[in-house]
Amino acid sequence: MTNEQPVVLTIAGTDPSGGAGIQADLKTFTAHGCFGTSVVTALVAQNTTGVQAVHAPPPEFVAHQIRCVVEDAKVDALKTGMLYDTETLRAVITTLRDHFSGKDMPPPLVVDPVCVSTSGHSLLHRDAVETMLRELLPMAAVVTPNVPEAELLLDTAQRADETKITTVQDMIASASALGALGPQAVLLKGGHVNFKHDDLLELMKSATLNATLSVVWLDAAVAGPEPVAVIARNASTAPTENLVLDVLFEKPQKTTVFIRPRLDTTSTHGTGCTLSAAIVCELARGKPVRDAVRAAVLYTHRAIESAPGIGKGHGPLNHLHALVTRPVPLKSASNPFPFVSAMIAACGHEWSAYVKHPFVVQLGKGTLPLDNFKHFIKQDWHYLKYYARANGMLVAKSSTFPAMAAAATTIQAVVSETSTHEELCAQYGVTHKELRITQESAATAAYGGYLLDVAISSDASALLVALGACLVGYGEVGLWLVRQAKEHAEDGFTVEGNPYQRWIEDYAGDAYQHAVTVGLEALERMILDSSPSAARMQEYAHIWRKCTRLEKSFWDMAMTVHS
Amino acid sequence: MTNEQPVVLTIAGTDPSGGAGIQADLKTFTAHGCFGTSVVTALVAQNTTGVQAVHAPPPEFVAHQIRCVVEDAKVDALKTGMLYDTETLRAVITTLRDHFSGKDMPPPLVVDPVCVSTSGHSLLHRDAVETMLRELLPMAAVVTPNVPEAELLLDTAQRADETKITTVQDMIASASALGALGPQAVLLKGGHVNFKHDDLLELMKSATLNATLSVVWLDAAVAGPEPVAVIARNASTAPTENLVLDVLFEKPQKTTVFIRPRLDTTSTHGTGCTLSAAIVCELARGKPVRDAVRAAVLYTHRAIESAPGIGKGHGPLNHLHALVTRPVPLKSASNPFPFVSAMIAACGHEWSAYVKHPFVVQLGKGTLPLDNFKHFIKQDWHYLKYYARANGMLVAKSSTFPAMAAAATTIQAVVSETSTHEELCAQYGVTHKELRITQESAATAAYGGYLLDVAISSDASALLVALGACLVGYGEVGLWLVRQAKEHAEDGFTVEGNPYQRWIEDYAGDAYQHAVTVGLEALERMILDSSPSAARMQEYAHIWRKCTRLEKSFWDMAMTVHS
Repeated sequence: MTNEQPVVLTIAGTDPSGGAGIQADLKTFTAHGCFGTSVVTALVAQNTTGVQAVHAPPPEFVAHQIRCVVEDAKVDALKTGMLYDTETLRAVITTLRDHFSGKDMPPPLVVDPVCVSTSGHSLLHRDAVETMLRELLPMAAVVTPNVPEAELLLDTAQRADETKITTVQDMIASASALGALGPQAVLLKGGHVNFKHDDLLELMKSATLNATLSVVWLDAAVAGPEPVAVIARNASTAPTENLVLDVLFEKPQKTTVFIRPRLDTTSTHGTGCTLSAAIVCELARGKPVRDAVRAAVLYTHRAIESAPGIGKGHGPLNHLHALVTRPVPLKSASNPFPFVSAMIAACGHEWSAYVKHPFVVQLGKGTLPLDNFKHFIKQDWHYLKYYARANGMLVAKSSTFPAMAAAATTIQAVVSETSTHEELCAQYGVTHKELRITQESAATAAYGGYLLDVAISSDASALLVALGACLVGYGEVGLWLVRQAKEHAEDGFTVEGNPYQRWIEDYAGDAYQHAVTVGLEALERMILDSSPSAARMQEYAHIWRKCTRLEKSFWDMAMTVHS
Repeated sequence: MTNEQPVVLTIAGTDPSGGAGIQADLKTFTAHGCFGTSVVTALVAQNTTGVQAVHAPPPEFVAHQIRCVVEDAKVDALKTGMLYDTETLRAVITTLRDHFSGKDMPPPLVVDPVCVSTSGHSLLHRDAVETMLRELLPMAAVVTPNVPEAELLLDTAQRADETKITTVQDMIASASALGALGPQAVLLKGGHVNFKHDDLLELMKSATLNATLSVVWLDAAVAGPEPVAVIARNASTAPTENLVLDVLFEKPQKTTVFIRPRLDTTSTHGTGCTLSAAIVCELARGKPVRDAVRAAVLYTHRAIESAPGIGKGHGPLNHLHALVTRPVPLKSASNPFPFVSAMIAACGHEWSAYVKHPFVVQLGKGTLPLDNFKHFIKQDWHYLKYYARANGMLVAKSSTFPAMAAAATTIQAVVSETSTHEELCAQYGVTHKELRITQESAATAAYGGYLLDVAISSDASALLVALGACLVGYGEVGLWLVRQAKEHAEDGFTVEGNPYQRWIEDYAGDAYQHAVTVGLEALERMILDSSPSAARMQEYAHIWRKCTRLEKSFWDMAMTVHS
């Protein structure tokens, strides 16, 4: 989820039990990566079993809350839900009008014309319906009535009491009739009416003939008129039985029918709030109404399908179904390499056992026997062959030229690192031939083999991680030894005059440290680009830790001379 | 995020601007995968610039809201924030006590003793502090005062007016003194006091000597007493300058000091609400207090550091920093294979261009010239070599024996599929030698080469996706042709008596369809296990689409005879 959070606002009642009202709205906003703000029109003592009592603050206090939000932040889209009574409704309308009138682009308003709760409790006084119709609906980008609400609104508009919406044709006509009352678009939610596949044959025929009418099958792989057969035959829900239709009417005369399978569930508390809040989020991101509605209907459908089963009555939805936790924190000023930090942290004491190994300590004090160092240099020369070859595999796994060039640069650097090894050997009287025929120790072969194993079994990212532990670890050893010499000379640490001065200075030096920084940045960029799952992070941590252990074993081996 | 959502409750005031109060709590709950419920003690007209007005509902209505929540769902942990006045506070205490007393394990309560807003507005009447101290604190698992609140609480307890908390020692002593007032644990938040690294030297010495005192460096890779040097040298924030300390006291006498870098920011609106809400979530999941506090402090620190910069005053935190969007919907009854559905949907019309290719249509009608079919069979025989080899690479990339066995089973199935090809060839007068020396067409080599490319450049998951398009597509073709024969015989589709009856029945038959189901399940399991990032999903979609195009090209090629 990016740092760009559109600001969205809900003006509605509350639900302490968390499934509906501003609570459901805020959860939906959060699940969509939006910054949620919310104004309470009425406190409602309710839960999954129904509405028990309502306490409404003075309408002026509702207006005050709205001003707190809109005067402080630029709202990108907003919705209204339960507006309680005429006075509150008027306070909301006036405050929004006062603030946004004269603004070039007032944010899109979604009106969820909440009138009656599922449990039958009136959430909008009857006399307020008229006001909503005359004054609020014309401000709306989208109004989202369910069938009873649509019937009530149309009856009120027509001063009649006869609207009955039972067929597809009724729904299409009613959505358009509601559109004539002022809003830019109407989403007539069909959850109260059940359809079968056969009810839709005529609709689908009309849709092919009529350019202003289109039909969208949601979860199309299963429920479409031409489902993917291999998937449908494995689905336990018969795809064309018991369908729900939502009809979107957009001015001047575009109609879209969204079709989805009906879910056999009682977890529907807060469905309307959730849907309208999801539409707000999609509009806030600039989606066209039809795309916004499509995404919101699907989000809500899935939220119902994965409901957590909380409460004794009509349960709440699962607003969190589309969220996963980011396994690596965002990069920050204080932590520029959060991925590598996490890798090192996951190693626990094994990382210290590697970078502060007794071999390193003796080397830093200059007390390491030369034979051990010679042994180490010879084995490291052999190890570097694997390291270069693994980088060759990295080229083979790269998909961009810069990535290939970076790996090739590493190969070149490794090859020139080996000439330092060769010079040191020559200095110690080890001939090139002796170096070349030195048998690989088990620790060398194990580590080299593991790099090739990762190269064969996994992808470029994992290989980059495997190669990273060595690169970063040697950089750490270099810096640590320089700091030890500065801060703990009394313990015998020294660089100046140390027989291994050149080795320490090489790894602490600018050239190598620059390579480390480049490597760290490549690892972090890879992580930022791919945003790995928790499972993949575990795989990476496993690889990093295994390499850390192999590094430690390598130095254990170097402490035991077999020359 | 799993479907297991612990139920958590906040009892607090509101912030319409979304940064503090129950709004911040609900966002924090959602970000932690918890099911948030919330009781409003007071409506507050506030935003990032400060508190403007408060409207409190009758205390009995606050109690009513609490009952709505606790009588409907099992609450796993809860917090209190702004409690406004003595009457509201008493209503909260009595209602919680009435409900939870006698319960075996009342859920842990986190008390955020909100007294004064950042902007200096009183959020708790002065006379209520005494009640909070005497009656609410003893119910708390954790109480989370900041320094001014701790001073006020201690002064009130001691009927004095002299507490001043300015040093590390003050903080440790005050946390313990607050502990003596009843709560199980005290988190004294040190955001109001600034420390330098040198202030902590004595603390760190004491911690090594004192078994009841420990020091935890958060973001340890940077700020610890022994930072990772290669990371610290690249950090733009000096790690040991300007530190913040939070002191956790746990009964009987364990003290933990959490140290983190101070962030140079004004985005701190709602920090206390967020922190206590995060502790609630961690406790609800059963974490011990110390681990819960550690995680919550880190969550809040990162939320401040990545603040979205909204509003004109003290901006809100980024509650969403740890969330990413799930790119594949959860599996459901109506959509058992959401990953493969998404892959097919992402292909758009190209999937139909493959599975309903003119070659397939002519084959289903029996009108396909035999030469084209022969050409196809011969090339398919060559293609299957690549397919089997790619499965061999899949074995090499597998980390479990069952995964190896599954790929080996596919190899066996492919090899036996080729004997059908050989029999068909023999039937058409094509000798085995002719088959063997038939030159690969470009389409065959391109497709086969691509499978090996994925095998080299990526990991087992990506290879499984590449191998899936063929497996699933042929299953789809088989089922589609059988349905066409049933529903569109008038267009010439037929199975019975079709010269290619055996081919159709092979792919529509139980054996092959079972293999498809097994393959689909393997793909979905892989996705469920690895929960790929959006970037990885794009990579998978790219692979699936490329294979879909290569399949289409393969049939294009088969339509052009070169025998």
